[in-house]
Amino acid sequence: MQPRLAFIGLGIMGHSMAGRLLAARYPLTVHTRTKARADDLLSDGAIWADSPGHAAREAQFVFVCVPDTPDVQKVVLGDDGVLKAISAGQLVIDHSTISPAATRELAAAVAQRGGQFLDAPVSGGETGARNATLSIMVGGEAAAFNTALPLLQKMGKTITHCGPSGAGQLTKLVNQILVSVTNLAVSEALVFARANGLDDQKTLDAVSGGAAASWQLSNLGPRMLKGDFAPGFMIKLQQKDLRLALAAAEEQKLHLRATGLVHELFDRAMKEGRNEQGTQALFEVCREALQR
Amino acid sequence: MQPRLAFIGLGIMGHSMAGRLLAARYPLTVHTRTKARADDLLSDGAIWADSPGHAAREAQFVFVCVPDTPDVQKVVLGDDGVLKAISAGQLVIDHSTISPAATRELAAAVAQRGGQFLDAPVSGGETGARNATLSIMVGGEAAAFNTALPLLQKMGKTITHCGPSGAGQLTKLVNQILVSVTNLAVSEALVFARANGLDDQKTLDAVSGGAAASWQLSNLGPRMLKGDFAPGFMIKLQQKDLRLALAAAEEQKLHLRATGLVHELFDRAMKEGRNEQGTQALFEVCREALQR
Repeated sequence: MQPRLAFIGLGIMGHSMAGRLLAARYPLTVHTRTKARADDLLSDGAIWADSPGHAAREAQFVFVCVPDTPDVQKVVLGDDGVLKAISAGQLVIDHSTISPAATRELAAAVAQRGGQFLDAPVSGGETGARNATLSIMVGGEAAAFNTALPLLQKMGKTITHCGPSGAGQLTKLVNQILVSVTNLAVSEALVFARANGLDDQKTLDAVSGGAAASWQLSNLGPRMLKGDFAPGFMIKLQQKDLRLALAAAEEQKLHLRATGLVHELFDRAMKEGRNEQGTQALFEVCREALQR
Repeated sequence: MQPRLAFIGLGIMGHSMAGRLLAARYPLTVHTRTKARADDLLSDGAIWADSPGHAAREAQFVFVCVPDTPDVQKVVLGDDGVLKAISAGQLVIDHSTISPAATRELAAAVAQRGGQFLDAPVSGGETGARNATLSIMVGGEAAAFNTALPLLQKMGKTITHCGPSGAGQLTKLVNQILVSVTNLAVSEALVFARANGLDDQKTLDAVSGGAAASWQLSNLGPRMLKGDFAPGFMIKLQQKDLRLALAAAEEQKLHLRATGLVHELFDRAMKEGRNEQGTQALFEVCREALQR
């Protein structure tokens, strides 16, 4: 018999991920802030729960996917939260991207109740969630990772056990530092190209095949030059992740100068009302911000 | 009958490139500062000339590949230089990476003598030069580009006519901005990973396949973590290119903040005696420079 699962948080990512678990014929209980987000899952056989605690009570695996650290804390530690509902043997898997330090505290609280906690942030966006091709970066005990792995494989493709509790979140932050500073490389280079009157397509053709190559250049470069700022990944979400990265760096007495620069430029973007534009709008911000 | 070629500057890049032209059975005259660098080419049938001017005199195509702007200026404009030796119909092709503004002046001077000038900086390093897989970014008139193309194809694979005189150099600088800021992304991310005790290989595995992917990450990341700073591309050469990029940006009243940051960190590297280390030593510099 399949174990019962709970999924809490049916945003863009969570909704698709819960859908994959349901499609794999696991009995699924769901909870999210806005019940209408669950309608199609309920039609497909999921059961509604009125609170995170109710969702978690009967579930062997409790998945969480919400926006930020306080949201996960509320879901787990709140009055009608997961923690009070669970007992020995239950496993909480947090797909949100949140603070590594807060993650370790949550894991300790769950362990005190006899449960286990995995941090398992994802990358790969909406497409990855829909097609179950996400990268999932997991922190926590190896035994819990192995128990969860068959379920994670329903949602992702590259699934890495990164280390102890918090290591999944830290690895996700490594990913976000790479993504955002490489985006800055592309933005600054293309602002330079435009200012010097170079041809867009010829420039991309000439530099995309060698040591300058990156996912950001191939995927966001053409959109920058077309002025297409529709979101793949929204600036306000990237900015949250960079805040987490800068805070985690501060705890190690590290000053991430390049990441800090992107954070500053995204702050400017948000003041310009670009919160929900895609991260490639960094190009537009750089066009103005780099002018002397 | 094949046209006679001249090749001036037989450094690591120039020597391999001249060798490819000779292997394609073009009659070739060579000149370089240190005659011994030409020995094997002379054994293979190249003819020695005592000055750039002597090399250029009989050649329909004059290739130049020297380190920096003043070197090209000396080769072309000097007392025994190319300019005095050439007449109508001759084509000068400069493979050096130099100032776009100086390039336009050189092109104008050559045009005044009835000749033509192409800026044609390359990327792809020693391996690309040896295997004729270089990217060649060309600026100048389309007719001259088309005349030179069959020869460029003996040395490179991705050959782009980027635009008018200087556009090849500007495109090379776009490439170098991308390369160096992406290198900074990788360095800063891996310094963060190390400071947080993450496992090297698991971290690379988890982040290399998605939106964080880059040539710099795949190729330099593992070397950074192994402490292998043998040069693919030397810091002192990258630093020269960044100086050119920052100067060309200033002419457009652009302040390239990320590129400027890499330039500052490489300055620090050079003060530490890392001039001839590979650019991946930026990781070591970041380890110290990002400490609070």
